[in-house]
Amino acid sequence: MSKLSAEDIEKRLLGLPEWEYYDDAIHAEFEFENFKDCFSAMSRIAFECEALNHHPDWSNVYNVLTISLTTHSVNGVTEKDFKLAKAIEAIVEPDEED
Amino acid sequence: MSKLSAEDIEKRLLGLPEWEYYDDAIHAEFEFENFKDCFSAMSRIAFECEALNHHPDWSNVYNVLTISLTTHSVNGVTEKDFKLAKAIEAIVEPDEED
Repeated sequence: MSKLSAEDIEKRLLGLPEWEYYDDAIHAEFEFENFKDCFSAMSRIAFECEALNHHPDWSNVYNVLTISLTTHSVNGVTEKDFKLAKAIEAIVEPDEED
Repeated sequence: MSKLSAEDIEKRLLGLPEWEYYDDAIHAEFEFENFKDCFSAMSRIAFECEALNHHPDWSNVYNVLTISLTTHSVNGVTEKDFKLAKAIEAIVEPDEED
C-alpha cells in the first residue's frame, strides 16, 4: 500500500466533500441527533474497520464524531484510508448512497 | 449537581488510581488486547452513559481508549463524573470488582 501524493489525495477528496486533508491524514466531523445515534453509527463503522483491517483515530463528544484516517505504516494517506472513508460515508450519509 | 473542589476530587481519586485530575476534568487511558476488545468495552460504556445521562469526551486509536469526564454545565467535576468513572472501571477492570 503506497502513500498517495497530495495531488492524488485532493483529487480523490472531490468525491468526499466532508473530508479535509492535512497533517498526513484525512479528517471529517459528523453531527448526529444525539449520543445514541452517534454511537450507533460508530458501531457500524467499527464493523467496517475490522472487515477492512484498518482503524481510525476517532473521538466523540455527545452527538459529534471526529474521525482522522491515516496509514501509520507509510506515515501518510493510502487507498486504504479512502476505502474506509467511503464505507464511513455510506453509514453516516445513507441518502447519498442512492 | 455542584462542582467539587480540587481537594474533594483528589480524595475521591484515591479510589480510582487510573484517573488523573487536570483542566477541570478527570482523565484515564485504557489499553486493550486489540480493537475488538476496545470497542466492545466502549459499547458497554455507551450503555452506562445513556443510563446515567452523562457522556464522556473520549477517543480511540486501535486498542487504546482515552476518556475525559467533566460536567459541562458547571465547568468542572461533579459526583456525576465519579459515578460514570466507577461504572467505567467496573467494565474495563472487572477483576477489581471482586
